[in-house]
Amino acid sequence: MTVKKDENIFKGVVHNMDALKEKILNEGKVLSDKILKVDSFLNHQIEPSFALQLGQEIVYRFREENINKILTVEASGIAVAFTAGLELNVPVVFAKKNRASTSDFNVLKSSIYSFTKRESIDIYVNKNYLHKEDNILLIDDFLAHGEALKGLVNIIRQSQANLVGAGIVIEKVFQQGGRALRDEGVRIESLAPVASLAGGKVIFCT
Amino acid sequence: MTVKKDENIFKGVVHNMDALKEKILNEGKVLSDKILKVDSFLNHQIEPSFALQLGQEIVYRFREENINKILTVEASGIAVAFTAGLELNVPVVFAKKNRASTSDFNVLKSSIYSFTKRESIDIYVNKNYLHKEDNILLIDDFLAHGEALKGLVNIIRQSQANLVGAGIVIEKVFQQGGRALRDEGVRIESLAPVASLAGGKVIFCT
Repeated sequence: MTVKKDENIFKGVVHNMDALKEKILNEGKVLSDKILKVDSFLNHQIEPSFALQLGQEIVYRFREENINKILTVEASGIAVAFTAGLELNVPVVFAKKNRASTSDFNVLKSSIYSFTKRESIDIYVNKNYLHKEDNILLIDDFLAHGEALKGLVNIIRQSQANLVGAGIVIEKVFQQGGRALRDEGVRIESLAPVASLAGGKVIFCT
Repeated sequence: MTVKKDENIFKGVVHNMDALKEKILNEGKVLSDKILKVDSFLNHQIEPSFALQLGQEIVYRFREENINKILTVEASGIAVAFTAGLELNVPVVFAKKNRASTSDFNVLKSSIYSFTKRESIDIYVNKNYLHKEDNILLIDDFLAHGEALKGLVNIIRQSQANLVGAGIVIEKVFQQGGRALRDEGVRIESLAPVASLAGGKVIFCT
């Protein structure tokens, strides 16, 4: 990913995301065979110009789709989703999280299980912001077991909107959430697919 | 706010934010004398090019400060904070929220009371991302009772960093959180200061 902020990524081909992978190797913290933290540039601190490149690359990979809306879930997906929305000049909707099950009839909701927090929560989107005419790209920072993404896909199905696919920054391929969704026909583009974190070492898929 | 996306807001003067105020009047929902929802463009759905103008205006108002970092709190402050970070090319840190009090010694934390959710939560920032040499601008979408902002100010004080001030999109001036912080010497710039929501009507400060 040698494209600078002011160059037009649309001129290029799909990029190898070497800069992202290097950043993960240099700044990421492998806390266990399952947990990778990238707080320095994605999940706690964000470098805007770098995040912009990630959003641009995701948009580039879906360039043939007529996307009119981006959907993500709060909180750490928002920044990259925002950059994609900025690039396409389309609105970005972020699903909200709620511990208590909502009884609001004006929302589309899905229950998801958080392996990190070991609890089920509801994610929901107000019906006003998803329509059956929409052509939606999902974006999230991480894909692991796929709970959040499955919840978002479920909400899109309820809305009868068209799902173009999902753009993910880091996919922990070994946790197989992506596999289940791909088996259902969801197109997923991951900028940095991680094959393994075993032994404290990040191994990317080739 | 007649500045278009591709013009340079730095050429202008402080803008009156008429477009923001119109959007609040047209799309905002006054749910009570105290509650204003702006889900259509800020708190649930975001219009990226519009949010970018808000971030640019905040940055413009603090243009004489040598800001090297933006601090906000998840989740709905992230988008506007991100645009400001993009404009200044500086990192954006978002404080995280936690219901359970954390005992992690590597974080700076502050307990805040949410009037909306009627509970106290911890917000925290990892010490790695705030340093005493930092010159920090706080950004948030709303300022009401000021609990979140006071918590962020408290965290900055713990870090010994310099606080340049706070940029807020919508300030509910009648709830007086801003007054308390200004009395302590914190510079606050609000793009849309709301004097009253009484009777279901949004009245801006003149």
